[in-house]
Amino acid sequence: MKPLSRWSGALLGAAILAAGISGGSQEIAGIRGFRASRVESERELEQKLQSIPTAARAEANLRHLTSEPHMAGTDASRRVAEWLRDQYRSFGFDAEIVTYSAWLPLPLEVKLEMTAPEPRTLASPEQPFEQDPDTYDKRAVPGFNTYSPSGEVTAPVVYVNYGMQEDYRELESLGVSVEGKIVLARYGQGFRGIKAKLAEEHKAAGLILYSDPQDDGFVAGDTFPEGPWRPASGVQRGSILYTELHPGDPLTPGVGPNPSARHVLPADSATLPHIPTMPISAMDAAFILENLAGRHVPRRWQGGLPFTYHVGPGASQLHMKIAMDYAERPIYDVIAKLHGTNDHEWVILGNHHDAWVFGAADPGSGTASMMEAGRALGELVRSGWKPQRTIVICHWDAEEPGLIGSTEWVAAKRAELQEKALAYINTDVGVTGSHFSAAATPSLKEFVRDVTRQVGDPASKGTVYDAWRGHTARSFDEISGTARKAPKPEIAGEAPVGALGAGSDFSPFLDYAGIPSIDIGFGGDYGVYHSLYDDFYWMKHFGDPTFAYHAALARVLGVLALRLDEADILPFDYSAYASEISREQNELAARAAQEGTQASSLKPVAQASAQLSASASRASLSLRAVKATSIDPARAKELNRALVSVEQTLLTQGGLAGRPWFKHTIYAPGTYTGYAAETMPGVSESLDRNDPATLRIEADSLAAALRRAATRLDEVSNLARGAESSPAAGH
Amino acid sequence: MKPLSRWSGALLGAAILAAGISGGSQEIAGIRGFRASRVESERELEQKLQSIPTAARAEANLRHLTSEPHMAGTDASRRVAEWLRDQYRSFGFDAEIVTYSAWLPLPLEVKLEMTAPEPRTLASPEQPFEQDPDTYDKRAVPGFNTYSPSGEVTAPVVYVNYGMQEDYRELESLGVSVEGKIVLARYGQGFRGIKAKLAEEHKAAGLILYSDPQDDGFVAGDTFPEGPWRPASGVQRGSILYTELHPGDPLTPGVGPNPSARHVLPADSATLPHIPTMPISAMDAAFILENLAGRHVPRRWQGGLPFTYHVGPGASQLHMKIAMDYAERPIYDVIAKLHGTNDHEWVILGNHHDAWVFGAADPGSGTASMMEAGRALGELVRSGWKPQRTIVICHWDAEEPGLIGSTEWVAAKRAELQEKALAYINTDVGVTGSHFSAAATPSLKEFVRDVTRQVGDPASKGTVYDAWRGHTARSFDEISGTARKAPKPEIAGEAPVGALGAGSDFSPFLDYAGIPSIDIGFGGDYGVYHSLYDDFYWMKHFGDPTFAYHAALARVLGVLALRLDEADILPFDYSAYASEISREQNELAARAAQEGTQASSLKPVAQASAQLSASASRASLSLRAVKATSIDPARAKELNRALVSVEQTLLTQGGLAGRPWFKHTIYAPGTYTGYAAETMPGVSESLDRNDPATLRIEADSLAAALRRAATRLDEVSNLARGAESSPAAGH
Repeated sequence: MKPLSRWSGALLGAAILAAGISGGSQEIAGIRGFRASRVESERELEQKLQSIPTAARAEANLRHLTSEPHMAGTDASRRVAEWLRDQYRSFGFDAEIVTYSAWLPLPLEVKLEMTAPEPRTLASPEQPFEQDPDTYDKRAVPGFNTYSPSGEVTAPVVYVNYGMQEDYRELESLGVSVEGKIVLARYGQGFRGIKAKLAEEHKAAGLILYSDPQDDGFVAGDTFPEGPWRPASGVQRGSILYTELHPGDPLTPGVGPNPSARHVLPADSATLPHIPTMPISAMDAAFILENLAGRHVPRRWQGGLPFTYHVGPGASQLHMKIAMDYAERPIYDVIAKLHGTNDHEWVILGNHHDAWVFGAADPGSGTASMMEAGRALGELVRSGWKPQRTIVICHWDAEEPGLIGSTEWVAAKRAELQEKALAYINTDVGVTGSHFSAAATPSLKEFVRDVTRQVGDPASKGTVYDAWRGHTARSFDEISGTARKAPKPEIAGEAPVGALGAGSDFSPFLDYAGIPSIDIGFGGDYGVYHSLYDDFYWMKHFGDPTFAYHAALARVLGVLALRLDEADILPFDYSAYASEISREQNELAARAAQEGTQASSLKPVAQASAQLSASASRASLSLRAVKATSIDPARAKELNRALVSVEQTLLTQGGLAGRPWFKHTIYAPGTYTGYAAETMPGVSESLDRNDPATLRIEADSLAAALRRAATRLDEVSNLARGAESSPAAGH
Repeated sequence: MKPLSRWSGALLGAAILAAGISGGSQEIAGIRGFRASRVESERELEQKLQSIPTAARAEANLRHLTSEPHMAGTDASRRVAEWLRDQYRSFGFDAEIVTYSAWLPLPLEVKLEMTAPEPRTLASPEQPFEQDPDTYDKRAVPGFNTYSPSGEVTAPVVYVNYGMQEDYRELESLGVSVEGKIVLARYGQGFRGIKAKLAEEHKAAGLILYSDPQDDGFVAGDTFPEGPWRPASGVQRGSILYTELHPGDPLTPGVGPNPSARHVLPADSATLPHIPTMPISAMDAAFILENLAGRHVPRRWQGGLPFTYHVGPGASQLHMKIAMDYAERPIYDVIAKLHGTNDHEWVILGNHHDAWVFGAADPGSGTASMMEAGRALGELVRSGWKPQRTIVICHWDAEEPGLIGSTEWVAAKRAELQEKALAYINTDVGVTGSHFSAAATPSLKEFVRDVTRQVGDPASKGTVYDAWRGHTARSFDEISGTARKAPKPEIAGEAPVGALGAGSDFSPFLDYAGIPSIDIGFGGDYGVYHSLYDDFYWMKHFGDPTFAYHAALARVLGVLALRLDEADILPFDYSAYASEISREQNELAARAAQEGTQASSLKPVAQASAQLSASASRASLSLRAVKATSIDPARAKELNRALVSVEQTLLTQGGLAGRPWFKHTIYAPGTYTGYAAETMPGVSESLDRNDPATLRIEADSLAAALRRAATRLDEVSNLARGAESSPAAGH
């Protein structure tokens, strides 16, 4: 009996593949998307690739990357870019630097003082520690928030907990207004740009953000340099750009970089904040909070400082002054290509290289690992292998200010990317511990699980997948007080793959260009985010002392790239996508039903979702029926193109209501959450706002997108059937 | 049409009564248990009673009660008892003091010092505050735990969070042993006696209890004297007697007071702890905790002190020394009777009068309010009313060391109480705020709701009931971080009445003698429990500044007593009891089923529960069918006696496995929780321990109790039917 061909394995049950069953005892396990005849050679290739990355090389990479502070817009950032380019050239890549000029003001002065009840200078620098000479580096930028305007304010203070929407609602119920006041908000629960926007909307005169010990300091665990958490003097830098409207250069909204004719003025930019904003440490915040009057805060507003918090205002008065230099600065994207036989299909990997200070975890750990993946791929080429497709590795500049390097590049190359890109694989804070996590478009979730089943976990005898499934089953606060809650598994008993929100460079690829995307990393206790202390010492003592997880991340990245490069038929699973859409649609319908009259607007969505499910099922069956041995390369290419392009059918040309840059109808960051993904954002947020007119428009737009996807999947079915009965097939 | 008689109203739907519907527009609303002809006069009597208590008198009572520290075993406690006796005599009561001698050691020396890494004297006294001269009183006893043995220990320290069972399990998983160490545990989550027992079981050398700011200090809200929460120097005194085995004098287990021939020696007492134990303040605990080494604690073990907690041990070494005087002391129960026409039926109210220091909230607020209820009842007698039954008001001594005054009195009078007592109504920490709460045997839950529907709430235009139902619907942490979570309502939309656990004087009445019981009070933010700061200043500034809630509590207590005194047929609702039992039995069966083979042991319980439900329904119907006008007093008395005695049929003579004093098969404090009620404790704890042999015995004992209750309810049905067709009835 001829073994059942399985290059359409993407559509077989995961259980069968996981068990390595392939129809006969002499056979090796199949690989989703590979003809049986190619499975063995692919396994060998992956084994070879996996043998190349080393912890020592990753450590050396990170030591170099963290040798000086290298913020976007500085010469050091250019030096890192040049080094990366040269490294990739040495690996055998065709590497170049793409330079853009971006609106990137840096601070001239950031000053904060308490003027009453007693004078005190605040906004103190981060404390150095003898154990770690890097913390004495004078080149570290002081705490500031990118895109704060210049300004000077003297006003009393009101504390607003995390400064998110529900906090302002609570404040209102307490009868306290922030109008004309300086708002003090702690970091956490949402993107800081949302906090700036809400403070502005509530007419605050200024905003101070601080790191509460409860969220990432001593309440969570031992602080640096004794432990991985934020010391009392640690400051979280960060951008407050309104990226929920669009990321990228605030002066080139929705267009490519440098088309100077179409630049807007800073005053006309929709994404630049309007009130002075700065970050401070817990230690400085304590002086302010201790002097607030008013009623004591609701229980869940109380943080970790050792006194009862009060809402304010009170005797204490602050004087804040911020002077920015309002300048454009050059940024440097590194684009490295390993050309394949087919140079018109690209597998893209990326991470940013700019850092607030040393950036050991963010982004150095991801960069150091990705370099090892790149080196491994280069080694394979040196040993005689030729990629089927082109592998593109990107190291973006100016991610921290607002995903600028990636957004501008995607905008400039949108048409080419939509034609050529098969997928985008991102890592950013690549390693802060041993807990693997992933987010992806639903079509790629099972693919990510597949690959992690092939890579060994450094700490256990099992695979990365086994460890991942094990730790997500544990409850959240046993591990850390601040890590994001693990997403619920989409499939019971499997490791969960989350939805892609925002906060890193996959956003322009997915949200703007409709490229299927993946984001991965190994997480752990990490309290030094965006501070001086996110440095080599931190990684060597807490994040990944042996660098074994850097090497593991390099292997996962490498195998992800290799399989996408080598697959006969791309391992995209649209049945999974359709069922996630169907589940979400049901939840939205239930919400709409609760709110009464608006439910009818969602009927077209339900119908289109059902159509999509049917088309996805048919496509799955058609692909399963294809005999692997009986397809010619031209047909396979056409089929693959159709599979990739399904994601783009989910874009809507005009974008979401009020934020046209975000074109994806299924995923976007929430307008008032910022990092977390909002599913079916147009419909969901119209329901939140109780806006029936917009709801109808967004529901129709979503339904149209789902119908387009269904139609495209019907084409996939036809191509699959055609492929099978192709004259080129040898029966 | 003759109006439908409704003195069996206990068995009509609550909705009908609440709406005041009574069959015709000219009629007044019925009262559960009253003939229609008596409803109007009862309403008048209740109105009159409610008009008597005043906030000013309650305040004066509290000012007197808190004029000096009056711990059990001291002369001041005798002075309070004598004053209470004299007050009740002035109200017209027949009042006397009953004196017992109890094992009641007091501390000679309580010393704690850190010997390493640096010497420091701990166990500091509570700090006085200028605003409140009472806090300078030298007569306040220093922090100590009653029934700690004398002892001296020098040892390193291990922190065990709350020191409850799950904490020791977690500690074991961390690989840390407390053997030979001093255990540091924070107060909260369970009775301190359980913490002592667990530390002893785990072979600790000593135990230190402290108040963490997260639980009742600055994390919860402003601290005394700026707010109602515990200041950093505040110490929680309290007993560590193993009352989960039995409360009362540890040398008279399960027998009455002073039968000297049957005293056991202290060394042979089952309820005396064996390792030195003392309480300290947050401020002192901080010095110890800061010097602990080992790994940082699991997230939920971290408290509110401003550093990362570690499990220990470490460099720090403690020397603790406790010297107790091992003496018996006299205690003084005050028993005040208002004799009724029928002196063989008693309605009993009670609270303790002993306090750790001034005891403004605990127990003064309850005492001051109960005195006003007593005065009001006395005034009614002076104005010509004569109680139908005898009202007994008790003020217990030595509740704080272990419910000694009440337990010894109940033990001495058990037979008489089981013959005469209709119900026991307790209040203890009577007023700490404005949120009414209640716990009761299920037969009396609707009765408690009924009465609170008749008393006005001081803060709103509605009744105590309306306010109670409103606030329990609010989420827990909006009110306070430490108050007990509101119980789930037994009936959707109604205010919830909880189950009776332990921790106050209802325990001997219910758990040992089977007297139907009620416990009530008004709660709020209260962080000064068992400290120097629970004083008049606290009550006047935070707990109840106007004393309006004291007056409201007096009214609720008074109407509860009056209705039980005056009811034609006692308002006990055994259908409600049967359905709570049925629900609990279902939950236990589900738990047993999960654990497999033990499920069959519970079959007799299910059968008996079904039998009880059927009998309760029949009894309800029979009582509803009774024509109020057609019953003679002798028959009514017999019926009432049968109704009261149903509770006693739920006792099992031999008591629960391992703790024979606890005789109630449905309710007991949990063996390893201490305050919270465990329902069907014998069965439930056997399941917890996975002990099938005991489970079988306890299930049979429970089933037998349920069958006895069913039989007694069948007698109620027969009596009710007999009563209706009684020859004495005038048709």
